[in-house]
Amino acid sequence: MQSVNWDGVPVERVNDRISRRMVTGDKVMLVRWQMRPGAVVPAHRHPHEQVACMLSGSMRLRVGDRWLDCKAGDVVVIPGNVEHEAAFPADCEVMDVFSPPREDMLAKTESYLTRG
Amino acid sequence: MQSVNWDGVPVERVNDRISRRMVTGDKVMLVRWQMRPGAVVPAHRHPHEQVACMLSGSMRLRVGDRWLDCKAGDVVVIPGNVEHEAAFPADCEVMDVFSPPREDMLAKTESYLTRG
Repeated sequence: MQSVNWDGVPVERVNDRISRRMVTGDKVMLVRWQMRPGAVVPAHRHPHEQVACMLSGSMRLRVGDRWLDCKAGDVVVIPGNVEHEAAFPADCEVMDVFSPPREDMLAKTESYLTRG
Repeated sequence: MQSVNWDGVPVERVNDRISRRMVTGDKVMLVRWQMRPGAVVPAHRHPHEQVACMLSGSMRLRVGDRWLDCKAGDVVVIPGNVEHEAAFPADCEVMDVFSPPREDMLAKTESYLTRG
C-alpha cells in the first residue's frame, strides 16, 4: 500500500513549459501535468491505454483524426496505439491515467517531450 | 476514443448516502464517488488494483491493518486482494481508478455497498 499527497510528490521539469508528478502502482500510473501557455505534446502513440482527466485550463487534443477542445471536467479515453497530440494555449492541469504504467516515463527514456 | 464531461455522466444512486459516476476504458475504470456524512464502505477485497484520489472532504480508510485519515490531494494505491474499508464523516468526493475495470460494478452485481 502506498499513500501520498500530490503536494509531496516531487515535481519533474520536462522542458520549459511542461512539468509533471507521477504516482505508480502495478497496473496503473497517474501523471499529473502542469502545462504553461505554448506547451506542445507532439504526435506520438504507445500501446498503453491513456485516460486524460482535465483538471483546469484548456487543451486542444487530437486523437486519431479527431480534434477536441477540452476543458475542466472532461475525460478522454485514448485507446492503446492510437496517435495523439496536444497543444496548450493557456495554463492547464491534466491528470493522465496510464495502464499499464509507462516504463519509458519511469526510466526517462521517452524523447518526444524533451525536444521542445 | 471516448470523450465525456463528468457533468454529463449519469449519476447512479447506490444507497441513501452513496452515489457514483463511472467512465470505463478497456484496462481502466474511473469511478467518481459522492459520499454523504455517515456513508460506510464495509470491508471487502477484489483482485483489481485500486487507486483512490481524494478530491474533497475527508475519509477514514483502512487498507490491510493500517488506518489512514485522507484529505483532498491524497492518493492511496491499494494493491489487488488487500482488504479495505472506509468511513465518511463529512461530505466527500473521491475518484477511484480500477484496473482492470470492475465488471461487478458494471453489471451491478456487487452487493457490499447496497446493504446500508
